[in-house]
Amino acid sequence: MDFTFGRVLKVTLFGQSHAPAVGVVIDGLPAGIAVDFNELEAFMRRRAPGQSAHVTPRREADTPEFVAGLVGGVTCGAPLTAVIRNTDTRPGDYEALADVPRPGHADYTAYVKYGSSRDTRGGGQFSGRLTAPLCVAGGVCLQILRREGVDIAARLTRVGETPASSGDEAMLDTVEKARQDGDSVGGVVECTARGVPPGLGGPLFGGMESRLAAAVFAIPAVKGVEFGNGFACAALTGSENNDAFAPDGGKVVTLTNNHGGVLGGITSGMPLVFRAAFKPTPSIAKVQKSVSLSRMEQTDITVTGRHDPCVALRAAPCVEAAAALVIYDAILETRGR
Amino acid sequence: MDFTFGRVLKVTLFGQSHAPAVGVVIDGLPAGIAVDFNELEAFMRRRAPGQSAHVTPRREADTPEFVAGLVGGVTCGAPLTAVIRNTDTRPGDYEALADVPRPGHADYTAYVKYGSSRDTRGGGQFSGRLTAPLCVAGGVCLQILRREGVDIAARLTRVGETPASSGDEAMLDTVEKARQDGDSVGGVVECTARGVPPGLGGPLFGGMESRLAAAVFAIPAVKGVEFGNGFACAALTGSENNDAFAPDGGKVVTLTNNHGGVLGGITSGMPLVFRAAFKPTPSIAKVQKSVSLSRMEQTDITVTGRHDPCVALRAAPCVEAAAALVIYDAILETRGR
Amino acid sequence: MDFTFGRVLKVTLFGQSHAPAVGVVIDGLPAGIAVDFNELEAFMRRRAPGQSAHVTPRREADTPEFVAGLVGGVTCGAPLTAVIRNTDTRPGDYEALADVPRPGHADYTAYVKYGSSRDTRGGGQFSGRLTAPLCVAGGVCLQILRREGVDIAARLTRVGETPASSGDEAMLDTVEKARQDGDSVGGVVECTARGVPPGLGGPLFGGMESRLAAAVFAIPAVKGVEFGNGFACAALTGSENNDAFAPDGGKVVTLTNNHGGVLGGITSGMPLVFRAAFKPTPSIAKVQKSVSLSRMEQTDITVTGRHDPCVALRAAPCVEAAAALVIYDAILETRGR
Amino acid sequence: MDFTFGRVLKVTLFGQSHAPAVGVVIDGLPAGIAVDFNELEAFMRRRAPGQSAHVTPRREADTPEFVAGLVGGVTCGAPLTAVIRNTDTRPGDYEALADVPRPGHADYTAYVKYGSSRDTRGGGQFSGRLTAPLCVAGGVCLQILRREGVDIAARLTRVGETPASSGDEAMLDTVEKARQDGDSVGGVVECTARGVPPGLGGPLFGGMESRLAAAVFAIPAVKGVEFGNGFACAALTGSENNDAFAPDGGKVVTLTNNHGGVLGGITSGMPLVFRAAFKPTPSIAKVQKSVSLSRMEQTDITVTGRHDPCVALRAAPCVEAAAALVIYDAILETRGR
Repeated sequence: MDFTFGRVLKVTLFGQSHAPAVGVVIDGLPAGIAVDFNELEAFMRRRAPGQSAHVTPRREADTPEFVAGLVGGVTCGAPLTAVIRNTDTRPGDYEALADVPRPGHADYTAYVKYGSSRDTRGGGQFSGRLTAPLCVAGGVCLQILRREGVDIAARLTRVGETPASSGDEAMLDTVEKARQDGDSVGGVVECTARGVPPGLGGPLFGGMESRLAAAVFAIPAVKGVEFGNGFACAALTGSENNDAFAPDGGKVVTLTNNHGGVLGGITSGMPLVFRAAFKPTPSIAKVQKSVSLSRMEQTDITVTGRHDPCVALRAAPCVEAAAALVIYDAILETRGR
Repeated sequence: MDFTFGRVLKVTLFGQSHAPAVGVVIDGLPAGIAVDFNELEAFMRRRAPGQSAHVTPRREADTPEFVAGLVGGVTCGAPLTAVIRNTDTRPGDYEALADVPRPGHADYTAYVKYGSSRDTRGGGQFSGRLTAPLCVAGGVCLQILRREGVDIAARLTRVGETPASSGDEAMLDTVEKARQDGDSVGGVVECTARGVPPGLGGPLFGGMESRLAAAVFAIPAVKGVEFGNGFACAALTGSENNDAFAPDGGKVVTLTNNHGGVLGGITSGMPLVFRAAFKPTPSIAKVQKSVSLSRMEQTDITVTGRHDPCVALRAAPCVEAAAALVIYDAILETRGR
Repeated sequence: MDFTFGRVLKVTLFGQSHAPAVGVVIDGLPAGIAVDFNELEAFMRRRAPGQSAHVTPRREADTPEFVAGLVGGVTCGAPLTAVIRNTDTRPGDYEALADVPRPGHADYTAYVKYGSSRDTRGGGQFSGRLTAPLCVAGGVCLQILRREGVDIAARLTRVGETPASSGDEAMLDTVEKARQDGDSVGGVVECTARGVPPGLGGPLFGGMESRLAAAVFAIPAVKGVEFGNGFACAALTGSENNDAFAPDGGKVVTLTNNHGGVLGGITSGMPLVFRAAFKPTPSIAKVQKSVSLSRMEQTDITVTGRHDPCVALRAAPCVEAAAALVIYDAILETRGR
Repeated sequence: MDFTFGRVLKVTLFGQSHAPAVGVVIDGLPAGIAVDFNELEAFMRRRAPGQSAHVTPRREADTPEFVAGLVGGVTCGAPLTAVIRNTDTRPGDYEALADVPRPGHADYTAYVKYGSSRDTRGGGQFSGRLTAPLCVAGGVCLQILRREGVDIAARLTRVGETPASSGDEAMLDTVEKARQDGDSVGGVVECTARGVPPGLGGPLFGGMESRLAAAVFAIPAVKGVEFGNGFACAALTGSENNDAFAPDGGKVVTLTNNHGGVLGGITSGMPLVFRAAFKPTPSIAKVQKSVSLSRMEQTDITVTGRHDPCVALRAAPCVEAAAALVIYDAILETRGR
């Protein structure tokens, strides 16, 4: 059940980096929803590799084939199912990794969990490649949400030590510098959902923070998630941190948004805001220390192959996708009440 | 399903702050486990109110009655079920809140979700009181884990602007100052689990970060969760952030622990480390702006009643409890493979 | 997770026959529903033991205490939680059973599953006593359904070789004869739900037959479940078995109801009809062959204690309760679409 | 969530009769299991159409393409995912059905549930075609179970009024007669699982009867499921129905098997025996009464297209598949304890 997520909307991912395909089954979409394939393709292109010098040159068409769930481009109640073929795989790049795990990567823990049968090619099911079907599912939900007045947008707010306030060019320079050094760099993505209806979520394990965090931490390389002012709230007093309520044309709003749109696990109707910290890509060209698992001896490792120097660069659509799945799931759940 | 958590170990909480009782049903514990009631009582006392000047003077015996699941103090395979009576309730304190929601609290969002039937007494099911049965469940798991060599300990690392390095007294002074000001203050709790076996968790939605974050965000007032070096990793390069592997007496260890014991969603065998940010208690004595829901007009609110000036002070056992539930659940899940 | 059932409405049972209590947590009820305690008590009395010569003389008040989920007798969105104390327990009756399992009972399989820590007193968590909290949950749902125009009624259609057409007295005579012989007898219960809205359920694992059967087989002693004409349909041709559609005042009805109100797993709006076969109570006074588990030797067993000679006699409310849980759950689920 | 089944082993089906494909995602298989493709193909052939005069002449290669989950034919821990292309579709056959539902079929209830967006081609997601991916998943589990000493075999025990004791030819004659009459006929399939370890399952909703029935009722056309002597037990006394225990070389066996291998929801180690009743194929050539949904008027319907005159004929492998999924799931679940 590691590959399934959601309550009313059940999203099941499948695939490995170098298997014939990756894909997704989405169970629980209402019947009668038109899928805009052009819009979806544009969304998928935002996360696709091979776009610029700053990202991995691996090229994937990343075009999902919808093999079930549609009649004439409209959902029919059967699970919407998409298959994306893996075309540009180079398994040879990864052979040595079977014995020497890459520091910071899932190689070692996959070995402990699955043993010698694990897929050592390109990270197997731990690969960022699995975010492609995540974006198919999330991309469809983003379309539906937009039609219902919910708009979700994520953006990079920091790359390494360069904040977004320094400008996009400065952030790309930081990535480029890391690439030239045979290194990589981390980043922070901030996501804002506007138009989210109040009343989604619930107390305790039904809280939107719990559900959003569970989805966002499923994206490879995420090491922190915070809502509203997040960790900064720990330094404040209640009188500084509390958001005053005010009437606004028959609705209740807050005058500030430190709470990030969630109170008591339930959406308040204010913009839902959260940030995710992405660690630097663990696969770097620099020499690193590791272990030969077969000989249990220290050894050096130099990771070759094609890798993004900054996964955060392509992460915004993945974060939007994760947020869309949770928010649309909560909307469907709430409609039942 | 907002009140149930876990995969193999299913924990279901129930109760409201001013209902006759709160409690928990724990389904999935193996048969044959002795519960140490003294140890559990000592653990419960760590979160109990009424201990010092710094926490709410509400006094609760907080003694769970185990009404099912045991034969002679040993689990028998039936769900372990505990009921904790709510004895010291003062519903009168809360009447006014039915119309004027407290800023920063769940009052308003509960109203949106449940309407006029919601329990307005003491936060109802959103109350920190629900962490008592969470601690019963977590406390039992902590006992079992300790017998299996897993030790989980959480501690306060910051209160407001005072870091733990300033000493306990400085942190308590910060709380006391907030209390005297009719205000409250936030804090950060860090949790470390040692002895966690490698191989727990899984890729994507099965990742330990996803599952731990879902449990920890269920604790009222948590606004951020980060693993290992967390948000700080965003500022680093891969060569700085990656933890080198090394052999250590037949095992594989890492020489640093920036990853916080989880790689690719799976435990590495290194200490599992995470931090949770707690916002300042929203219930403060200072005058705040709010709205009369019946008249849809701006109004002032002054929260009376007994409230902790710093929920983080009592949060460490709750964080340990949440961590224990997830880790023991993952151990039971892994044993099946 | 053996003790939790449902999708939107999550019902968690707890307790053992001779634990301090049995009970239930019902998560997912809408807020704002008034519970009619008198009606519930009347419903509980239908399954209660001690009513007549034909059932076990064990007397239980069977009065649920609602410890959470209500404010002034109305649901508030928190899980509705009821505790029923076990008052009239006689553990001594069961001591010998720890070593010699009763034929037809769960004694042996509980030993295999839980080992020596199992609760050997009165069947532990396998006891028919667990149907008391099932009836609390189902009884509340029956009330809600009735207000929505859904009426569920179950009745005994056979006791041993005596069909209902022979009259109630003949069926009771059959039970009485078994009792005097130190024996027991089986029976069949038929349940009909009228007013069920069409469109509940779904294909495959979402089918109403799957969900109803899962709930009904959870009642101890059920060995068969069939819908509509059930097993008899196997002997028919399609032209005999198909139910013709006809218009009826703007609705679609069927002229016969061989399908029992479910087509393709989805309710048709026709009465939902199913039958459950109950085996004879396994606990009988007659000498039977069994095994001493400690000595692995053949031995005789004579079951003493108080046992119903025909569990089917008291089963009708349990079957109604199981049906109500599934149907109301499906209604809540469908409302979301 | 209508398309996902299982606890530890999560099986998700997708597809419609006339979509590009049907298929299955199997999450939770241990890593390191070799799939025998020849054996699987032979198993799939048992359910495939187009084999004889007695079944539908629709021909499908039914060859699953495994697009994920394997490395060199061995499971790697990622979900095993198979896609089966639908090649021989003739959507034109079904156009008229959009307005006039076939009696006994899901056409009408699908219309109620999904509205005008439903897939009216060949039954959409309600088609028996979905049993192909069910058999892929079940076929893999059958292989694994066989290696662990568990053997599952189902067979037809009745076709219409012809019992298996009359011989296969007599049963096929009954099918042939129905076909020539433009009619169809029902049947009963009995399934026996030998070598099932004792101790699988649990009380209440964890009972094997509940879980097996839920899976078997998911197969289209099943209207009844019974275990052991099933409905016949209702006519017996306890002394007739109870199965005496006896020691047998260090194990405990029962001398008879009225209980069908399950006591208290838990396997006893005796052969697990159950029967499923299949209704006659609803699609028949004879004229039937139905309703025009657009005009809400009575109308006649004659179903053309290719249909099995007896679905039970091809149902045995489907029943084996359903049983294998549940039993292997329960084995994986039990291994964790």
